[in-house]
Amino acid sequence: MADTPPPPDDPQPAASEAQPAAAEAQHTSIADVGEFGLIGHMREVLGPVDDDTVLMGIADDAAVYRVRDGRVHVVTTDALVEGVHFDRTFAPMQHLGFKALSVNVSDVVAMNAAPRYATVTLGVPQNVSVEMLGALYGGLRQACRAYDVAVIGGDTVAAPSLTLSITVIGEASEDAVVYRRGAQPGDALVVTGDLGASYAGLKVLLDQRDRLQAEGEAFRPDFDRFSYCVRRHLAPPAQLQAIRDWAEAGVRPRALIDISDGLASEAHHVCEASGVGALVFGPSLPVHRETAAVAEHFDEGVDAYVLFGGEDYELLAALAPDDLAKLDSERVSVVGQVTPAEEGVRLRTPEGEEMPLRPGGFDHFSEG
Amino acid sequence: MADTPPPPDDPQPAASEAQPAAAEAQHTSIADVGEFGLIGHMREVLGPVDDDTVLMGIADDAAVYRVRDGRVHVVTTDALVEGVHFDRTFAPMQHLGFKALSVNVSDVVAMNAAPRYATVTLGVPQNVSVEMLGALYGGLRQACRAYDVAVIGGDTVAAPSLTLSITVIGEASEDAVVYRRGAQPGDALVVTGDLGASYAGLKVLLDQRDRLQAEGEAFRPDFDRFSYCVRRHLAPPAQLQAIRDWAEAGVRPRALIDISDGLASEAHHVCEASGVGALVFGPSLPVHRETAAVAEHFDEGVDAYVLFGGEDYELLAALAPDDLAKLDSERVSVVGQVTPAEEGVRLRTPEGEEMPLRPGGFDHFSEG
Repeated sequence: MADTPPPPDDPQPAASEAQPAAAEAQHTSIADVGEFGLIGHMREVLGPVDDDTVLMGIADDAAVYRVRDGRVHVVTTDALVEGVHFDRTFAPMQHLGFKALSVNVSDVVAMNAAPRYATVTLGVPQNVSVEMLGALYGGLRQACRAYDVAVIGGDTVAAPSLTLSITVIGEASEDAVVYRRGAQPGDALVVTGDLGASYAGLKVLLDQRDRLQAEGEAFRPDFDRFSYCVRRHLAPPAQLQAIRDWAEAGVRPRALIDISDGLASEAHHVCEASGVGALVFGPSLPVHRETAAVAEHFDEGVDAYVLFGGEDYELLAALAPDDLAKLDSERVSVVGQVTPAEEGVRLRTPEGEEMPLRPGGFDHFSEG
Repeated sequence: MADTPPPPDDPQPAASEAQPAAAEAQHTSIADVGEFGLIGHMREVLGPVDDDTVLMGIADDAAVYRVRDGRVHVVTTDALVEGVHFDRTFAPMQHLGFKALSVNVSDVVAMNAAPRYATVTLGVPQNVSVEMLGALYGGLRQACRAYDVAVIGGDTVAAPSLTLSITVIGEASEDAVVYRRGAQPGDALVVTGDLGASYAGLKVLLDQRDRLQAEGEAFRPDFDRFSYCVRRHLAPPAQLQAIRDWAEAGVRPRALIDISDGLASEAHHVCEASGVGALVFGPSLPVHRETAAVAEHFDEGVDAYVLFGGEDYELLAALAPDDLAKLDSERVSVVGQVTPAEEGVRLRTPEGEEMPLRPGGFDHFSEG
């Protein structure tokens, strides 16, 4: 034992902290701090990373470390928890398996890197059968094939609710990697695909469930109505092909992020990391006609879906003006421009007005 | 969307599988299959890994992939779930943070590799405070320093019970990596440290808790009595120094595994992977005097602690006979020898009898 690392020194203070009942212990609710606050707290306690192979730690879509001269790996990890990130009554197991890998691949893509390897940790409650896990693995396999990823490790543990915790390792040349921090005033802000569809799909599924439950019927997702939006919610694809196309066109974005928490939130992340502002052109935001139809069906404005609806997993990129012309204009939409920091993040409405655009992202810890 | 990977084809079959209530759907309980069965099922559904950089997939303590000529990374992932792997009433947060990294480092060490990077995913219930997480991060920091690991990524999500899912990436030269599969008849079986202490510590903690609860008192772990065993349970160290010493002595084990599920279970894993048998010398098994005292205190035989008690995180190695002399005999114990496959895994008792040794490992899914 002499040479093994020392276990924690003095257990007594920690022991008292393990006692939430002790009235004298301070108890700050995690809801007061939020997800980003907790991650910041962890970085603070752990201190700076002292390893010169690490080019980026916990401050972007994925961490980056050098594996040989000019070549880096990126690593990201994202968990989906039943009752928090999905509802098993309307997320089929196959889609869940696909989505859990997809959201991690999306983070790798957001570094302009290619996904390579994955590890999969499943927390499995008693009421999940082997057959249900088989369907989940099937969705995972589809995602592995779609993104050319090899699952090389995993852990399966008992848990009170279904949990999928996945880590994906990707690869890139060191000078191809794109961080959030490189946007410059004058850059064009572009997005792939369309926005708000995943949130629209969630609305449709929740509504279907509520109506069927009111009628006492078992719920089963209806893929025939608003099927584009429902699929985008249940099995969002990662935009791997977009970065391949851009590389082929000789375009390297100056900043890149995937849209997991809504466009407004991601624009704030890029602006904060880059020390810039942004002007988002409201009328130019790409919306699928079905997303618009869902919003109309629920008598809501589609703008909120597009700006704040999460889980689209499209990409937001800042491009040098010259690079814009190199891209297929059918594949990307120009949604704004990068401005000086002092202008903040603003939205230009169809009426030509400009107003501050708040992040408005979704925080699982503030749900109460 | 044309170029994005296709989401799952036909959602209908999966949708029906997402309905455990549907009487016609087959429902095989995961308890019937067990943890190893589930991992096997996943490997089967996913199919073989088709990537020539991958030297080892899901079949050892960690996966191995080549990052440049002669150099590999290893990756492993292990989760700790409240109520399954630990009880928050007697696992102080600081120890929990230390242990969660330690058990992953142990898997990297079991490949004869050095840990480098970690990602940390925390599932956090509402009744955990920011201060408790601060203590957990503190334990994580201690482990990072002890093992020279950089936390470079993470995710923090709401969850019904506290969950720590950690992935560790390590590094080694390709020819230094040791798998489970290399043991040969005639090899010596050695273990580091001593066995059964972690299980003894768990027994002490459970007993303390039950007695205090019977008296209506709040439980707080008592580190003064049987402190060696209690610490070994709450914050087991990984045996990184052992593999450093062996490398310095010019010893590369032929097979290596960490003892997470008990010596008997790990001996079976090595024998199965290597296609050999083993004879374990009962009287030679290393036991700390405090472990023996705990067993006596509970009027139990210490042999079961030593053979089947999990979570010691010592190493079990198969060494070529010539290599044995190169090691410090105070640091390792010879606990048996590798035999031909047809002899199976056997135990020699103090009386000189030989009997089959069953794995007897702990399976979280069979607890009911």
